[in-house]
Amino acid sequence: MIILSINAGSSSLKFTGFDMPSEKVLISGVFERIGIDGSFYTIKLNGEKIKKEVELKSHEDAVRILTEELVNYNIVKDLSEIKGVGHRVVHGGDKYADSIVIDKNVTDTIRELFHLAPLHNPANLMGIEAFQEYIPEATAVAVFDTGFPQSMPEENYLYAVPYEWYEKYGVRRYAFHGISHQYITEYMQKFLGKENVNLITCHLGNGSTIYSIKDGKCFDTSLSFSTNSGLVMGTRSGDIDPFVVPYVMKESGMSMEEVLNTLNKKSGLLGVSGVSSDSRDIEDGIKEGNERCILAQKLFVNRIVGYIAKLCCPLKKVDAICFAGGIGENSIMTRKQIIEGLSSLGVELDEEANNVRGEFKLITKEGSKIPCYIVPTDEEVMIARDTYKLID
Amino acid sequence: MIILSINAGSSSLKFTGFDMPSEKVLISGVFERIGIDGSFYTIKLNGEKIKKEVELKSHEDAVRILTEELVNYNIVKDLSEIKGVGHRVVHGGDKYADSIVIDKNVTDTIRELFHLAPLHNPANLMGIEAFQEYIPEATAVAVFDTGFPQSMPEENYLYAVPYEWYEKYGVRRYAFHGISHQYITEYMQKFLGKENVNLITCHLGNGSTIYSIKDGKCFDTSLSFSTNSGLVMGTRSGDIDPFVVPYVMKESGMSMEEVLNTLNKKSGLLGVSGVSSDSRDIEDGIKEGNERCILAQKLFVNRIVGYIAKLCCPLKKVDAICFAGGIGENSIMTRKQIIEGLSSLGVELDEEANNVRGEFKLITKEGSKIPCYIVPTDEEVMIARDTYKLID
Repeated sequence: MIILSINAGSSSLKFTGFDMPSEKVLISGVFERIGIDGSFYTIKLNGEKIKKEVELKSHEDAVRILTEELVNYNIVKDLSEIKGVGHRVVHGGDKYADSIVIDKNVTDTIRELFHLAPLHNPANLMGIEAFQEYIPEATAVAVFDTGFPQSMPEENYLYAVPYEWYEKYGVRRYAFHGISHQYITEYMQKFLGKENVNLITCHLGNGSTIYSIKDGKCFDTSLSFSTNSGLVMGTRSGDIDPFVVPYVMKESGMSMEEVLNTLNKKSGLLGVSGVSSDSRDIEDGIKEGNERCILAQKLFVNRIVGYIAKLCCPLKKVDAICFAGGIGENSIMTRKQIIEGLSSLGVELDEEANNVRGEFKLITKEGSKIPCYIVPTDEEVMIARDTYKLID
Repeated sequence: MIILSINAGSSSLKFTGFDMPSEKVLISGVFERIGIDGSFYTIKLNGEKIKKEVELKSHEDAVRILTEELVNYNIVKDLSEIKGVGHRVVHGGDKYADSIVIDKNVTDTIRELFHLAPLHNPANLMGIEAFQEYIPEATAVAVFDTGFPQSMPEENYLYAVPYEWYEKYGVRRYAFHGISHQYITEYMQKFLGKENVNLITCHLGNGSTIYSIKDGKCFDTSLSFSTNSGLVMGTRSGDIDPFVVPYVMKESGMSMEEVLNTLNKKSGLLGVSGVSSDSRDIEDGIKEGNERCILAQKLFVNRIVGYIAKLCCPLKKVDAICFAGGIGENSIMTRKQIIEGLSSLGVELDEEANNVRGEFKLITKEGSKIPCYIVPTDEEVMIARDTYKLID
């Protein structure tokens, strides 16, 4: 059975075509700069990468071209062979803990939650609507980034603000990246051969998040209300005192929007280093002795170490600490610094084992009180799995 | 030698008269509602408390009356016997790591830092100027709440924001309550018989803060840019995502000032419980089974436990965890819940020993990996000590 896994952003649309339940990737690719000059798309199949420049006025254009290419490249003879389309939806509020078959109720709810994710949910909905037009017979499934963390207990998701803010406006910690953390959790459940795993799962990439998993369920996270919270990220500040905002407004003459935009787009590794938001560039800078790159990396690593220590505490026994995402899977230096920072928890790095990129591996010594693993994540297959389950 | 220890707020002025170096308290009291209808002052001496209602138009009125009363009550025959006046100053920016004799440079700097502490520094300066008028011959000393935490390394005090915000506007973590944490640290240094103590010091009261002390110096804290950050407090939210602010503004129609004011004055224990900002009322509510009081206490305790776990991690060996402040010294229930929350660090409560209020005591079992102590704090004597040292 062929299932498409879709991630629609405001100006992009990523897709992966899976054969299910074998989970074999048949085709993948991305449409970029939708609605902007210079739009194009790339397709990967049979180890090749094809790039085509074409006008993409809307997500509809992208989906129309995608359906044509699926036939052109013999992925399907007829679109009716595509039985399911799974859509990543960023914000499900507290409405959806699990993935769900999309009907009018679901699209209405996604629309009602625009205010909580004004950049993401409208784009996700555009993707859903375009597929409904071109492949209407396929079962459409919404897989929410906020779904997996819905199991957090209220004392972990509430802020110490007037309780009415929660009741009236939904002010609470939601957490994102749930699809990735769920994938890592299921991978480790299978690997450890038990359901009730206690884990710390670190998704470290351009956006970075840490979850604690208790008895196989999300218990707490580094994330807060927005995607700007928690860890230091490529361009995002992560945690910061809100009273910095009016202070910087007054001192700099910037508007609130400008200050918040700076926290989102010009902070993090980029803001501190002044060099780049890309952790590979920061590593290069460190090798060259760039003081600000060294400082940016320290802030990045210290924040992670602090969150791991905090999130470990209530778990009592931790089965594993897992590293995923672009940085978590590939930065040997960052993993080393994090694990060394956790030495007081009895975690002991195996330097040789750690000298690897992008593969599942134990990277701590046998005597380490908590074993640490690299667990390459796969949000696309997680979306396809949930979609397959709901068709089945 | 007689030394006055002064804490001037915007509408209050607290004072304690010490004989130094014996540290004997000769007199203490507070002037309240300065500049507001219904002003009065209270004096404590010889175990008695005297309250007098009087018009207090300004801090000057309070200081004039204080100097008269010091003679009336035979604390001094002549004001020239007062050799020093130590003033608590909330914000020294990054200018002052140590207490300093006040001259024009110092008052100018305190004034330059008004923008960082718009509520506190102007009040502190009013106090300083009033004493300069009435007891000009006494050595005036500024003791900064931000002084002790100045030893934090830059990776602990910087945010992941554009580096220019730090250089141009002084955006960084400052931390407050330093005078109390310094007192606790010095107490434990004496008790443990060594300078290089590693501690977690918890000042839990209406305002609450946690410091980590490494080799006798402040290494990190729960505080951030403003006094609203870190722990859940009586009416303050503590840590919260700044992106909550524009969201609540939009949803509620409140202005930024109103939202921030709510985070400061109507959040914390009060906001969650809907009952009271006073932890004693919360405890009463819990006994009566009030769900929102139970929730408020969980948020309060969890935040503390999380910070202790985070702050312990880089210290490797921790000599002691110390509890001070109104709640830290007196709430048997809160200390019990915190220490039980730290069980994965190997901390073991001694329930019987914990059943005490307001006295120095070890409250963990002999086998506890980290011993925990109640350490009643004394900011007033700390101010008097620094003042005495600088006269000497």
